[in-house]
Amino acid sequence: MRVLVPLDTRDPNTRLAELLEEKERAALAAAMCRDVLAAVRAAGHDPALLATAPVSFDAPAESDPPERGVPVTVDDRPLSAAVNAALADAELPVAVVMADLPLVTPATVDRLTAPDADVVIAPGLGGGTNALVVRHPEFRVDYHGGSYRTHCRAAEQHGTLATVDSFRLALDVDTPADIGEVLLHGERRTAGWLADRFALDESQDRAAVERR
Amino acid sequence: MRVLVPLDTRDPNTRLAELLEEKERAALAAAMCRDVLAAVRAAGHDPALLATAPVSFDAPAESDPPERGVPVTVDDRPLSAAVNAALADAELPVAVVMADLPLVTPATVDRLTAPDADVVIAPGLGGGTNALVVRHPEFRVDYHGGSYRTHCRAAEQHGTLATVDSFRLALDVDTPADIGEVLLHGERRTAGWLADRFALDESQDRAAVERR
Repeated sequence: MRVLVPLDTRDPNTRLAELLEEKERAALAAAMCRDVLAAVRAAGHDPALLATAPVSFDAPAESDPPERGVPVTVDDRPLSAAVNAALADAELPVAVVMADLPLVTPATVDRLTAPDADVVIAPGLGGGTNALVVRHPEFRVDYHGGSYRTHCRAAEQHGTLATVDSFRLALDVDTPADIGEVLLHGERRTAGWLADRFALDESQDRAAVERR
Repeated sequence: MRVLVPLDTRDPNTRLAELLEEKERAALAAAMCRDVLAAVRAAGHDPALLATAPVSFDAPAESDPPERGVPVTVDDRPLSAAVNAALADAELPVAVVMADLPLVTPATVDRLTAPDADVVIAPGLGGGTNALVVRHPEFRVDYHGGSYRTHCRAAEQHGTLATVDSFRLALDVDTPADIGEVLLHGERRTAGWLADRFALDESQDRAAVERR
């Protein structure tokens, strides 16, 4: 299945500005995007980047980086407009998976693509939409605030809806607590990159992170 | 399967004290526990409460409340000691599901009990352990900080380990953001109780809640 991965290269992860400098936030965004692309590929699907500007990741740390050979479409419009233009052009089914989901594994991608519904939605923490599978030609996205419920309603208007109950798909990286989750559960590029810079403090009910 | 549901009746949900008075927090704890008991029963399992004191829920809002007929063991020791005593007495397999997981549905319980591993673990937000299935007689719990990783290591020492990737099992109610998740995804007692008292503000990247 074609899997669109939207990537906003403009000032990523601003809510982490107290913990990470701008260059670091760009490196974090690249690590997360690589993890998503690698998981999609390992699950047997075809990722395509949908980027706000031409993509230039930092130099790859590996000989065969997961972005190699991935097509890039540049569209500097807001996320919803860019994704909807891509949906209109795409052969269905098509998936849309955000680039900042570093806990996604190939098995997670399998769970997303398994349900045979017209629209499959994986919610993000706080009511966003972190991943979608679209099998209905009229379904369009609207990522404006509270998009999970908006997308569920739209899906039910067009056909059948399935939701995916996955913490790995729910966890996008927006706050310091999210960094803690990646340190706890991640095993790949992003987790390694973060482990070099943050330590987990598990003395409280919920783990916190401290800059090394 | 026997499903132990530990319930600490002493000053529940203290981190919500700015939003909810003590009586309200007790009512919230009761609603969450009822939702967990109902989900366990509807999945075809046998819940048993493991409580720090004799349980007296508020008057039930329904004619057949899910706590009716559920055995209660009172053990006022700390959580780990009480659960380990119950594990030592239990016929295996046995599950341990926390009482503050209001998004758990019968389908979630099915996913927890499905893997045929010696120990099945569902992590909570921040590295805790929200649910377990124990099939190995020597496995014991230690819920002290960072219990998810502790339990994974212990499981691998004794036999096979499976983890469950479920946002519904990960979401315990500890912070205002967690209340938002229940309003977004809950459909039963807890969500109804919270919806009477809180409104969702979905204007930000992640939904916030406001006291009505």
